[in-house]
Amino acid sequence: MTTWLDLASDDPFGVANLPYGVFAPPGGQPRVGVRIGGRVLDLAAVLRDSVFAAPSLNAFMARGRSEWTRVRALITESLSDERHRDAVEPHLHRLDEVRLSLPFEVADYVDFYASEHHATNLGRLLRPGTAPLTANWKHLPIGYHGRSGTVVVSGTPVRRPSGQIKDPDLDAPGFGPTRRLDIEAEVGFVVGAGSALGRPVTTAEFAHRVFGVCLVNDWSARDLQAWEYVPLGPFLGKSFATSVSPWIVPLDALGEAWTAPPARDPAPLPYLADAGEQGLDLALEVRLNDERVSAPPFAGMYWTGAQMLAHLTVNGASTRTGDLYASGTVSGPVPGEYGSFMEMTEAGRKPLPLADGTSRGFLLDGDEVTISGTAPGPGGIRLGLGEVSGRVLPPG
Amino acid sequence: MTTWLDLASDDPFGVANLPYGVFAPPGGQPRVGVRIGGRVLDLAAVLRDSVFAAPSLNAFMARGRSEWTRVRALITESLSDERHRDAVEPHLHRLDEVRLSLPFEVADYVDFYASEHHATNLGRLLRPGTAPLTANWKHLPIGYHGRSGTVVVSGTPVRRPSGQIKDPDLDAPGFGPTRRLDIEAEVGFVVGAGSALGRPVTTAEFAHRVFGVCLVNDWSARDLQAWEYVPLGPFLGKSFATSVSPWIVPLDALGEAWTAPPARDPAPLPYLADAGEQGLDLALEVRLNDERVSAPPFAGMYWTGAQMLAHLTVNGASTRTGDLYASGTVSGPVPGEYGSFMEMTEAGRKPLPLADGTSRGFLLDGDEVTISGTAPGPGGIRLGLGEVSGRVLPPG
Repeated sequence: MTTWLDLASDDPFGVANLPYGVFAPPGGQPRVGVRIGGRVLDLAAVLRDSVFAAPSLNAFMARGRSEWTRVRALITESLSDERHRDAVEPHLHRLDEVRLSLPFEVADYVDFYASEHHATNLGRLLRPGTAPLTANWKHLPIGYHGRSGTVVVSGTPVRRPSGQIKDPDLDAPGFGPTRRLDIEAEVGFVVGAGSALGRPVTTAEFAHRVFGVCLVNDWSARDLQAWEYVPLGPFLGKSFATSVSPWIVPLDALGEAWTAPPARDPAPLPYLADAGEQGLDLALEVRLNDERVSAPPFAGMYWTGAQMLAHLTVNGASTRTGDLYASGTVSGPVPGEYGSFMEMTEAGRKPLPLADGTSRGFLLDGDEVTISGTAPGPGGIRLGLGEVSGRVLPPG
Repeated sequence: MTTWLDLASDDPFGVANLPYGVFAPPGGQPRVGVRIGGRVLDLAAVLRDSVFAAPSLNAFMARGRSEWTRVRALITESLSDERHRDAVEPHLHRLDEVRLSLPFEVADYVDFYASEHHATNLGRLLRPGTAPLTANWKHLPIGYHGRSGTVVVSGTPVRRPSGQIKDPDLDAPGFGPTRRLDIEAEVGFVVGAGSALGRPVTTAEFAHRVFGVCLVNDWSARDLQAWEYVPLGPFLGKSFATSVSPWIVPLDALGEAWTAPPARDPAPLPYLADAGEQGLDLALEVRLNDERVSAPPFAGMYWTGAQMLAHLTVNGASTRTGDLYASGTVSGPVPGEYGSFMEMTEAGRKPLPLADGTSRGFLLDGDEVTISGTAPGPGGIRLGLGEVSGRVLPPG
């Protein structure tokens, strides 16, 4: 598929991609757009559908898969058929002239823990001397609810959080800014079409419920988390900010990215059985102050997005348009593929040397972290997932 | 304060109470109302303000405390001054003729664990041989995020959830309906006026942020929870349903209910210091199939609602109109005051004998649980908090 735009055939945001976001043109109100190359197409103007004049994707996503497919075909035609050029071109805005905002209203946010390598690394660091994976880990995708209200769009600065920190040598906790500010490089799944209370979603239904994927940085304060998380799980160590990329790549763009997940032993219970090759061969990259520090591979994740959704609903929990569930930190088996500084630096004990001569255990004020990603596209090209970026502000 | 309505002076829903809810009159759309005796007052009709014509309290709550106070004074005058009777009376609907719905759109839902007696009881039952309270318990109000999308209004049936259950004698989990369906009798706090990212809420700000309180039943599947909750906390064991009472009692009605919280040892960190007597002397009652089985006292809760909110935001997390945070199970120190069947029956080992000759370890299909509550009001009367009720449906 080619386009009448002046775009390289291997542009990561060519017509094979077409991710959705929310943008405000200069002096205009936020509205839904689709990215093409370095531009964004104003969908309300081109398709003359007021669902796209909204400041979030939610109303469009709620229409369901057949509408997602129909609209994608219309956009593809608009950008491919030279005859539409005169009508469409005035509604393309340069990305550097628009303001991007959170692409959807987040209903419930769930964070999983689906990388075996990450869970093993964390278990070794946090619970030395015990089995690194808990007994339940290979039986179910472990997850927990996070704070929807602090999900922010890429580019939002992240203020270093304060809270209770317990020094192992002292009897009582102190109070102050986290000394162990970390990232978690993750992939997020955005529910488009919700499901009713009492009706579990099967793994086969995944593509009917999930609209698309984004990149997620689940910022973590490891010292706050370590003191608070027993027995009810992470809370303030995570709830200060979760950043997401501005572009939601629809599942319809990811046809070449499906891959077989790793072999599972023991076999999961029937409700978690794969319905085809539901792994996704996404490649992530983590940059600290523009220096590449890691390249986590998503293809090796033990649990797929389809399994996470089936698990999340097997007790009858409903889902809603705008639900976000993220994979948990994506880590490969070897150094250079870890999705957190906790793992890259062995809990800060082996600081990471950087090109500027400094090193990092955990993040310093002023540090900027950017997670980007790509997926296989048609004809051997790579599709861009965009990036999620944030700079650390000093404590308030 | 008296009213021109024909109401006993000690009616729990007299003019000293005036809780807010959302009701639909016969053939009409859901809108905001205030309960007076056995009736509900249509606020949009009486106050001629379209903010009350909405199917949730959120827009009204977002206006902030000065508006909450102003509107309460107007309603009180409407119901007290005989001269308003002719204009107001046509807009009173009998409660048995309206349909009540969820009174607010739930933004984020957090559940705390603030009863020392409950946490001690659970620790003894779940982790025998270790200290019943974890090391952090007396330093911070432990909490975690729950699922907002499955918060339902009183009267909604609750289907018995299925999920993974691990028999201690077997190597692998099985799958099936929970055999340990339980309740948690709690008090919920509803945030009216949200707070910005990066700006912690102090304990002194509590009454400026929190609009009112409701009753909460945090239904729990103890066997699902036991298998899943290490290391990231409760998930499917809780996320199938959380029921709330239909009436939000405004803090303005609870002037007589403030009480000193219990002594704390060790003293909490400064950000958790009480700003006055911020405990609430609420009395709960739990009925199973209309038989009273427990009377949990809220006054003895170790952590107050003000401390919970201060903790929840101390890391800079923002709050939003519609945020719900609940106290965790309310349990007193002695049998007869426990807020869960887990505690009443010692994890099912000592079933509770009932008046009909049967007994209960955990809930059976068809069981109906109702949690009600009262608060001290002016002149020695008790104000009603209403009730939260739900019947157990068989697995789907």
